[in-house]
Amino acid sequence: MISQDILKQSISDSINNKTKPPGSLGVLEDMAMQIGMLQGTSRPELRKPHIVVFAGDHGIAATGLVNPYPQEVTAQMVLNFLNGGAAINVFCRQNKIELNVVDAGVKNEFITGTETGEARLIHAKIGEGTRNYLEEPAMSEDELNRSIESGKLIVSRIQKDGCNIIGFGEMGIGNTSSAALIMSAITGTPVRDCVGRGTGVDDDQLKTKISTLEKVFEKHWGEINEGPANSNLSVFSHNILRCFGGFEIAMMVGAFLKAAELRMVVVVDGFIATAALLCAKLIEPDLLRACIFAHTSGEQGHQKMLEFLGAKPLLQFRMRLGEGTGAALAIPLIQSSVNFLNEMASFDSAGVSNKDSLELSQS
Amino acid sequence: MISQDILKQSISDSINNKTKPPGSLGVLEDMAMQIGMLQGTSRPELRKPHIVVFAGDHGIAATGLVNPYPQEVTAQMVLNFLNGGAAINVFCRQNKIELNVVDAGVKNEFITGTETGEARLIHAKIGEGTRNYLEEPAMSEDELNRSIESGKLIVSRIQKDGCNIIGFGEMGIGNTSSAALIMSAITGTPVRDCVGRGTGVDDDQLKTKISTLEKVFEKHWGEINEGPANSNLSVFSHNILRCFGGFEIAMMVGAFLKAAELRMVVVVDGFIATAALLCAKLIEPDLLRACIFAHTSGEQGHQKMLEFLGAKPLLQFRMRLGEGTGAALAIPLIQSSVNFLNEMASFDSAGVSNKDSLELSQS
Repeated sequence: MISQDILKQSISDSINNKTKPPGSLGVLEDMAMQIGMLQGTSRPELRKPHIVVFAGDHGIAATGLVNPYPQEVTAQMVLNFLNGGAAINVFCRQNKIELNVVDAGVKNEFITGTETGEARLIHAKIGEGTRNYLEEPAMSEDELNRSIESGKLIVSRIQKDGCNIIGFGEMGIGNTSSAALIMSAITGTPVRDCVGRGTGVDDDQLKTKISTLEKVFEKHWGEINEGPANSNLSVFSHNILRCFGGFEIAMMVGAFLKAAELRMVVVVDGFIATAALLCAKLIEPDLLRACIFAHTSGEQGHQKMLEFLGAKPLLQFRMRLGEGTGAALAIPLIQSSVNFLNEMASFDSAGVSNKDSLELSQS
Repeated sequence: MISQDILKQSISDSINNKTKPPGSLGVLEDMAMQIGMLQGTSRPELRKPHIVVFAGDHGIAATGLVNPYPQEVTAQMVLNFLNGGAAINVFCRQNKIELNVVDAGVKNEFITGTETGEARLIHAKIGEGTRNYLEEPAMSEDELNRSIESGKLIVSRIQKDGCNIIGFGEMGIGNTSSAALIMSAITGTPVRDCVGRGTGVDDDQLKTKISTLEKVFEKHWGEINEGPANSNLSVFSHNILRCFGGFEIAMMVGAFLKAAELRMVVVVDGFIATAALLCAKLIEPDLLRACIFAHTSGEQGHQKMLEFLGAKPLLQFRMRLGEGTGAALAIPLIQSSVNFLNEMASFDSAGVSNKDSLELSQS
């Protein structure tokens, strides 16, 4: 097996021999290096890009305490995905990305026959939405484990189909609340600083959202942090997901873990996807070498999550839609990094003088 | 004719009725609004995207005082464009952008038969490179006027061919020096703060570059700023271009003016393109409504130019290659803004509950 140092030098040489001043493609060069190292070659390839949107309902959403849109919107938006009318459909069509929509736990039955070719529906329902975490943990240990396993299985199948670059999106009314609670538990940031406006709560609703989630955090924090969780980050992560999670978030954790294990390029979307990544990273600390961060969300809190991870996303578009829309926009930019590495001429092959030739001609 | 206010409201309504929380597509919504207003419709379209790369040589480059690469590289890179081996070729192929390369004044003869289908060569040579502005103005009044007219003509022809979104790139060893001088003259920033490393001068070369360009600035500033230039910004702009310009920069000024006049979407690349835009904006102050800024260049100075213009580019990738590469990467993002406006379902058409329906159901 080729040593990491030799591989790195080989990719670096290839980048620097292209007909351009060294370093002049900036972030694209960084990505070319990362993907080359991940795939173990100076000629990396990106094949069959996919976005997988995990959808699930949240017990808390039925209370109306944290969300301006009614809970039914989760199911309505899944149908919108299947009919091709959502933002993620538009960007996937434009950028030739295959779109998969997973029913991870929506309070609605979807019939496979309703698909229109715009998106593939994957049935992986764990339950009819999570329980209300104001009263009890969002899911059972068994539901959590099945969620994570389903996420892994879905990614394995997509990878077997030839895909090696994947982004994860989500749909779930109420899930910015889950993400804020997860963020608080993992980064130590007070709940109030993790909570944002989500799909658009007003000032009064925001106060209610914060006080509700502070109560939720207090209720479960002892249980999350006790016993083996104190010394085992994986147990800690599972406890957080069980108490605060959505099925779609837990499934995304499994998806992150499997995609990184399979050395796929993993495109990280916004606030909720990054919350899932925080959980996944507790389980597999090496995860980030596979990850490219698509965008900084307009949801307050995302910036802090990114700083916690030391991540610098590609786009700063103030987007806060979810669905994987940031990831879908970023994929062409990631493809550009691999394309320049594979397709540009070298100084030699193009007959272009390099800086060295000037020094030579001047001496 | 539809009033601007009614049009703005109509585009805004269309954006807000899409199945997404209001404002949640951030910068994409801003672009959709800008392009809608520019085209005078709530259903804007982007057709046949083009990049035009203007290439020219600079008298100063023969001295080796400002540039680490030899002057011949300008011609070599034009051949590289025509053969499809440069970064701009890769990104145009990927993003289905037609590439035109203009010989605005390269010290080399290009034969049309050498084209390979990767890029169209346009002959518009004004001269065999500019004169050395250490000694005399870079070009004559007549050469300047012909440059600007050629730029206009080239854009007119491309627009007649059906294109309505266009980005301009450049190639010219020594042209970051022209751009720095232009920036200093227009923004009032001292020359030393406008000069950067270009394609990669080292510390000693940078000192020489700065002191050389300070001399050039001193030599011509009186002539640039005298008489009618004092009260007429267009004359001031022409004087700056005549003394400091390259043929490729002056041609790009004409191209900006014509593209904005024809209400094309104008994608602004990096340091040199923005210097040309500064000149064009002195001639036509209304220019910016047509402009979308692609990226913040890694060339120091560009950030200050952007602040001077109040511009916020789409990408921050530390790129400093020129050729229009930033513009080529940005075009799919601009297309996404128009696509969501045209293709997404509305709340009504998709049967998705809006926030209002929640308020209704709760009342």
